[in-house]
Amino acid sequence: MAREGYFLEDLRTGQAAEFAKTITEADIVSFAGITGDTNPVHIDAVYAEATIFKGRIAHGMLSAGLISAVFGTILPGPGAIYISQSLRFKAPVRIGDKVTARCTLTEIEAPKKRAKFTCECRVGDKIVIEGEAVLMVPSRG
Amino acid sequence: MAREGYFLEDLRTGQAAEFAKTITEADIVSFAGITGDTNPVHIDAVYAEATIFKGRIAHGMLSAGLISAVFGTILPGPGAIYISQSLRFKAPVRIGDKVTARCTLTEIEAPKKRAKFTCECRVGDKIVIEGEAVLMVPSRG
Amino acid sequence: MAREGYFLEDLRTGQAAEFAKTITEADIVSFAGITGDTNPVHIDAVYAEATIFKGRIAHGMLSAGLISAVFGTILPGPGAIYISQSLRFKAPVRIGDKVTARCTLTEIEAPKKRAKFTCECRVGDKIVIEGEAVLMVPSRG
Amino acid sequence: MAREGYFLEDLRTGQAAEFAKTITEADIVSFAGITGDTNPVHIDAVYAEATIFKGRIAHGMLSAGLISAVFGTILPGPGAIYISQSLRFKAPVRIGDKVTARCTLTEIEAPKKRAKFTCECRVGDKIVIEGEAVLMVPSRG
Repeated sequence: MAREGYFLEDLRTGQAAEFAKTITEADIVSFAGITGDTNPVHIDAVYAEATIFKGRIAHGMLSAGLISAVFGTILPGPGAIYISQSLRFKAPVRIGDKVTARCTLTEIEAPKKRAKFTCECRVGDKIVIEGEAVLMVPSRG
Repeated sequence: MAREGYFLEDLRTGQAAEFAKTITEADIVSFAGITGDTNPVHIDAVYAEATIFKGRIAHGMLSAGLISAVFGTILPGPGAIYISQSLRFKAPVRIGDKVTARCTLTEIEAPKKRAKFTCECRVGDKIVIEGEAVLMVPSRG
Repeated sequence: MAREGYFLEDLRTGQAAEFAKTITEADIVSFAGITGDTNPVHIDAVYAEATIFKGRIAHGMLSAGLISAVFGTILPGPGAIYISQSLRFKAPVRIGDKVTARCTLTEIEAPKKRAKFTCECRVGDKIVIEGEAVLMVPSRG
Repeated sequence: MAREGYFLEDLRTGQAAEFAKTITEADIVSFAGITGDTNPVHIDAVYAEATIFKGRIAHGMLSAGLISAVFGTILPGPGAIYISQSLRFKAPVRIGDKVTARCTLTEIEAPKKRAKFTCECRVGDKIVIEGEAVLMVPSRG
């Protein structure tokens, strides 16, 4: 059997999962290419030095992708369908920062097969992104 | 003239901008590597064929990245700061689909230097993502 | 508004546009892979240290690609057709250098719908590439 | 001993070398990201269909990179320094096309340690790029 995620019946509120990685210059360069977001604050070190960020920062949506990694690979994992995501960008992520995405299950709507999560991305103790997500989760029934 | 973004004073509600690209298999593979989202629905064609999507789909956050491209490169462009983004994933994006992200300015909060946008990603006439965003925009003052 | 390029009638000699980015190790590695130019001066730091460049340098054609970015995305922008380009490589570009490509319109040949540009790539004040280009630009007529 | 190129004394006019590869969609996507050249004729299949090219084409500078691959890895090979390159873009290169770059030595200026080449890129029998190049080649002396 292939990699399978959780079924709705196996989820409990309070469950949480994390995925973390170091954000590299290569990640930012590639992300700019994939999305077309060549904002100089991401790809021009001299420009970025002169901004309030004092250096290049990662695309917010790149860090948000780590939230998607939690949902897509761990909790609920493969088989769940992404319904919605809100994101509040609280602080910048720099090259070399380890970003840890953590998603915590807050509510299960069994009739609609939906699970709600709070999400956060941290660099050390600092929250860089926070938000909420809804996923549709397959049921055993 | 280097690429500079709009100042708050130059924005008008109703202004809109678009960025579009065809989503390729290479984009999805790279996005999976950058974010760690190796959900088989994105990278395993055999698995994906057996899902309700009947084939591999792009990461929702990849298409959302095109919204970021609009903000980061066109409207408001370089210099604006991403405050928040909501995303509702309405339909899948497949390899070869052209995704057009369109952001429309709906409200300017001058005292807080904030601009609110509605955002949508379309494949042809179908909306695949819709949401709202808030950006902080530099003022001339 | 989607990104559209200039029409021939809207161009004026003296118009100029720039695109800039920091050249990263990841850019050089990827460029070597795409083009097959695996010259050790680009990808072998030990070899490159022993050359007159005293370290790895970017492919000249990679920096030249930023000239193409100016033409393809800003001036004249989408719709123009690249006819010719000359390049004189004046100085090396190293990992971490910000390269600014600047193209200046010098002549319009209306009957042939052609626009001529001088092009330069700079790192700080130093010119690393200079050349000339001809593009065919769509006319409104 | 590491990979070494030709010395000036070992070159003869008429010598030629080729490098060839199939241009993939992934090459174009990556090249757009590296250079920032997100011209829709390269990355937006729907847009490109409506142009005179009737589909996405590769960046001219990407194919030109194969000329650089000949110089950097075969003839003259590592140790030579790129002085100048002219490029005339004659026909488009499409996804899946095999591009063959061929460089032929036409003149040796021994006192200045310079070698001149004619260059062409072909897809099948069709020339897609032609140009000339000058390289400085190390001498044994």
